[in-house]
Amino acid sequence: MKKHNFSAGPCILPQEVLQQSSEAILNFNNSNLSIIEISHRSKDFVAVMDRASALALELLGLENKGYKAIFLQGGASTQFLMTAYNLMESKAAYLNTGTWASKALKEAKLFGEVIEVASSKDQNFNYIPKNYAVPSDADYFHCTSNNTIFGTQIKSFQSIDIPMVCDMSSDIFSRQLDFSKFDLIYAGAQKNMGPAGTTLVVVKEAILGKVTRVIPSMLDYRVHIEKESMFNTPAVFAVYVSMLTLEWLKNLGGISAIEAINNKKSALMYGEIDRNPLFTGFANKEDRSHMNATFNLIEGANQALFDELSKVAGINGINGHRSVGGYRASMYNALPLESVEVLVNVMKEFERKS
Amino acid sequence: MKKHNFSAGPCILPQEVLQQSSEAILNFNNSNLSIIEISHRSKDFVAVMDRASALALELLGLENKGYKAIFLQGGASTQFLMTAYNLMESKAAYLNTGTWASKALKEAKLFGEVIEVASSKDQNFNYIPKNYAVPSDADYFHCTSNNTIFGTQIKSFQSIDIPMVCDMSSDIFSRQLDFSKFDLIYAGAQKNMGPAGTTLVVVKEAILGKVTRVIPSMLDYRVHIEKESMFNTPAVFAVYVSMLTLEWLKNLGGISAIEAINNKKSALMYGEIDRNPLFTGFANKEDRSHMNATFNLIEGANQALFDELSKVAGINGINGHRSVGGYRASMYNALPLESVEVLVNVMKEFERKS
Repeated sequence: MKKHNFSAGPCILPQEVLQQSSEAILNFNNSNLSIIEISHRSKDFVAVMDRASALALELLGLENKGYKAIFLQGGASTQFLMTAYNLMESKAAYLNTGTWASKALKEAKLFGEVIEVASSKDQNFNYIPKNYAVPSDADYFHCTSNNTIFGTQIKSFQSIDIPMVCDMSSDIFSRQLDFSKFDLIYAGAQKNMGPAGTTLVVVKEAILGKVTRVIPSMLDYRVHIEKESMFNTPAVFAVYVSMLTLEWLKNLGGISAIEAINNKKSALMYGEIDRNPLFTGFANKEDRSHMNATFNLIEGANQALFDELSKVAGINGINGHRSVGGYRASMYNALPLESVEVLVNVMKEFERKS
Repeated sequence: MKKHNFSAGPCILPQEVLQQSSEAILNFNNSNLSIIEISHRSKDFVAVMDRASALALELLGLENKGYKAIFLQGGASTQFLMTAYNLMESKAAYLNTGTWASKALKEAKLFGEVIEVASSKDQNFNYIPKNYAVPSDADYFHCTSNNTIFGTQIKSFQSIDIPMVCDMSSDIFSRQLDFSKFDLIYAGAQKNMGPAGTTLVVVKEAILGKVTRVIPSMLDYRVHIEKESMFNTPAVFAVYVSMLTLEWLKNLGGISAIEAINNKKSALMYGEIDRNPLFTGFANKEDRSHMNATFNLIEGANQALFDELSKVAGINGINGHRSVGGYRASMYNALPLESVEVLVNVMKEFERKS
């Protein structure tokens, strides 16, 4: 049975990327060798790494603007500490919009003073704080563009005078932004870019090298930039699949093309959440994420029936995170509009049968 | 044409593991979902992680002895700093047997005093130092069991009074040892275990929690142990392929069975290096690695001819590392004896035609 994969991450990838990846496990580039048994220093893999980095910069519109794109390991969780290790001399400002933002903030505290400029914890992170001030004497400002767990998303970013660092793990490459506003963007691959196991970091080189602390090699962005993501053996397969996915996105027309599709998907999804009397949305309307729609059943609704109808329709991965409960439909780049249509039809059917 | 893959790492994996991995990219466990698009918290993947950890302990004979096996990211290079971060209060002792040992030593210096107990740098690391003293007041002793670049391997390990940490990246699961001599073993997956992108750490829990420094979450072994390698999203695919490879090894008869095969391969290889007047071995005979045979052509030999004969025979990845030059035949667990026979035949043919 065909599955409709709404997983929050690791999540759905384009079908053609899965096909190509599966073939490359047996025979990469007609070499009669597997992509996972060749040297990372072979000509063929160096070309993959170069292409992946170039595509990332191209899609973000950050070519020739002083940025470098590198592929690291350790997920966004390692970036929580690397950003602080590399950028915090005395204090930094953090916007707290959810679980991941809180974790970033917690790790940064090991390296200096952390100023929480605003938090939406008072409402279980169901909104994005606005009108907060970012102290101009902080070493950097850190924010999280999309909150996977709570289903909120920052819609507009301030222009500030200090370096802006953004965790874009769950919405990178999904919508057009002026990415040059940011000085460091990081993203675990496992939403819109590829499989779990590699993390994209796009950083303006000029902000590096300003702290006095000694940085261990593996945590030093400059080391990885100098070695073009090959200081040590990279996550070969994860980078390869990321390259394929970025190529797929480029062929589709890039970020603006996928944004139009993503907007259609989220309009359809939220339209039904708002229309259907058996469901309520969790996040503040103006802050709703285009990637993760969080919603609950109204009290007394027949949860078992909804779950059964979803299952029969091949819907996968819509259970909400334990911090929110209810449901979460993640609609990353590779999720077809058709899958949202199927889910919406299940919601309508549930209404009829309730 | 069939390839004989002597790559130093990432390297050859068992053909049946590649087959299964390729299939799981399209359809994992008959779920109609890809292994790389499912949640790492799904029941099916949690079972993979549990099985991989259990197999690692079982194969090493370390079940029920106070050890935990965890799968991290960042390669052995991240372990260079994590071991020091977690274990060094004031000073540590390091054995310097090559490039990787030197890098481990360099990172440790950021955290305290490092005592180099012995080094073979004077002879370009072509031997393993012996008869050195390990200071009993050091926080731990660190060594590297196999030196991929130079082709040397520690054949016997001292019993010492302080924790023993060993980088076994390039020979783990290849030979029987009393693994309970070690308190912490780490290994990048990409030699005998799986694809690049995950690192196995096997650690005796009792040695943790003794340092006073605060450890960032992602660098703290205790955090990863408590969360059973799921503190953050693990490298799902790399762990899955590692599990398949460990299962393959177990079905083959475990470490003692593969050791017998590995001994045959290395005996054949070194036998020819020693017999053939056109080649000389690089490493000190008694310290020769069973995993990586390093050798050079004698002066005046026709390199172009040897390279051409190798190529025609489908031999891949035998160029030596730039630090040593010449050739390196890596004979990891998954390399069939047949491939060594093919290489040895090429060496003989080269002798006849020279």
